[in-house]
Amino acid sequence: MFKVKVYTLGRLKEHWLQDALMEYEKRLSRELQIEWIICKNNADLMQRIELESNWIALDPQGQLLDSAGFSKKFMSFLEQFGSRLCFVIGGSDGIPQQILERSRWKWSLSPLTFTHQMTRLILTEQIYRAIEINSGSSYHK
Amino acid sequence: MFKVKVYTLGRLKEHWLQDALMEYEKRLSRELQIEWIICKNNADLMQRIELESNWIALDPQGQLLDSAGFSKKFMSFLEQFGSRLCFVIGGSDGIPQQILERSRWKWSLSPLTFTHQMTRLILTEQIYRAIEINSGSSYHK
Repeated sequence: MFKVKVYTLGRLKEHWLQDALMEYEKRLSRELQIEWIICKNNADLMQRIELESNWIALDPQGQLLDSAGFSKKFMSFLEQFGSRLCFVIGGSDGIPQQILERSRWKWSLSPLTFTHQMTRLILTEQIYRAIEINSGSSYHK
Repeated sequence: MFKVKVYTLGRLKEHWLQDALMEYEKRLSRELQIEWIICKNNADLMQRIELESNWIALDPQGQLLDSAGFSKKFMSFLEQFGSRLCFVIGGSDGIPQQILERSRWKWSLSPLTFTHQMTRLILTEQIYRAIEINSGSSYHK
């Protein structure tokens, strides 16, 4: 079982987003478990992330990859870090510099700006897609 | 009032996606109206798009832009085409070559592959964001 933690700021208000995330987490549940760590603010985020040794930062200045490229990278990180991996999604001011600098990898989903909430959904769907690509299923074609 | 038509394939099954689209369409409703034209298949899409003179194709090989760049492009297209604009989202096989070739512009949301359904949501949110950027609101900062 793979375990992914996502550090992020601010609760989910949108009902539709909760439903969407639940759908993908359910599909993933046989192979991967996502734990959402909702931080109060950047100071809280910095304190909590200290307990982790590796994380990936979602950052507009990060690397752009296609889904097959992300799948390869994701699976190789999971192997390297004992089936556990953390992601950090920043708030509206982005991720604090210290957390960015110490991240293992900076990943950009798109040059477009997405809402903080939609980023959660896109990340979850890409994780699901990465697993499906790796297993050779027909989800990604 | 701006009018945007989106030509796409396949009905929306996900309840959460209908809710999400409704939320953004409601926010947009003072300035812009979105009409969804759901085509049965590529032949149906090709027949219907013949009635339009201009369209933008969402295509993985298209141009990547940030949200401010898209806003500029979007507003200039609306001005050029009398406040009306069409977008085409392809099905799982992509957009037929003839429709791609005759499009005014090919736009890529990201090098990542998104589901057909999530593409509708991302497009709608980017249209809303484009309008907000143009009006100088604090939605996009």
